[in-house]
Amino acid sequence: MSTPRWLTTTEQRAWRAHLAVHKLLSHRLDRELQEFGLSLNDYEILVNLSESPGKRMRMSDLADATIQSRSRLSHQVSRMEAAGLVAREDCADDRRGTFAVLTDEGWETMQRVAPHHVASVRDHFVDLLTDDQLEALERAYTPILEHLKSIR
Amino acid sequence: MSTPRWLTTTEQRAWRAHLAVHKLLSHRLDRELQEFGLSLNDYEILVNLSESPGKRMRMSDLADATIQSRSRLSHQVSRMEAAGLVAREDCADDRRGTFAVLTDEGWETMQRVAPHHVASVRDHFVDLLTDDQLEALERAYTPILEHLKSIR
Repeated sequence: MSTPRWLTTTEQRAWRAHLAVHKLLSHRLDRELQEFGLSLNDYEILVNLSESPGKRMRMSDLADATIQSRSRLSHQVSRMEAAGLVAREDCADDRRGTFAVLTDEGWETMQRVAPHHVASVRDHFVDLLTDDQLEALERAYTPILEHLKSIR
Repeated sequence: MSTPRWLTTTEQRAWRAHLAVHKLLSHRLDRELQEFGLSLNDYEILVNLSESPGKRMRMSDLADATIQSRSRLSHQVSRMEAAGLVAREDCADDRRGTFAVLTDEGWETMQRVAPHHVASVRDHFVDLLTDDQLEALERAYTPILEHLKSIR
């Protein structure tokens, strides 16, 4: 391997700030969702299903959308199924497998929790940034996202 | 609860970009570290210990620095101890508990892995941003970090 290009001070500060913000923030949002019996991962599943036609997604698509392995998603969906938030459904004319479907209780839970969650996201992230900063953040992150998706 | 202030399009795009970048990025860095038998969490522990005086930290301080519970850290340190990367040491004249210490093997592992890890961080994040963007990112994230630390 050629001589490592260590990070400059500017690079290191930005990189560590990104890591630390995400870690503290996800920890905080997780804790605030726990009051409603949900984790941040649970909430993400509810959002994905609620935005899909028929409030259902193929398990493999849901794993892609939430960036996790099929087996890890399967465990999580089992827990959420036990809590009555989602159901699994086999699709008779589609051998590509199982769907996860948002139950009425899952939908109601999301409706109830969403106002609190959006307040958390505002308090701990969005409202601490100006519109210019939010736009700059998205501009900076879009090529990174495209790159990361292209190598998945 | 008063009427929710839902996120505007700009806010939602920035927020989702932040979440997605972090998720894809940590997944990728984790995978690239797996070639060396480490997770991103393991690497973070090695970095924290290597930067501390005597390459050792009190377990409670290490839990704070890596933003996780004592019990979760304890499990992780046990795995890393089994791999020979760290050792636990009781401090005779300090009843506040156990230290985690970087072993020679842990130090050598970090030296060997660091050039690869920094290349990953460059390829998938740092080198995709300009210096101006990196500085803006840190400026935007600093008040968020301060806020999140103040409410821990």
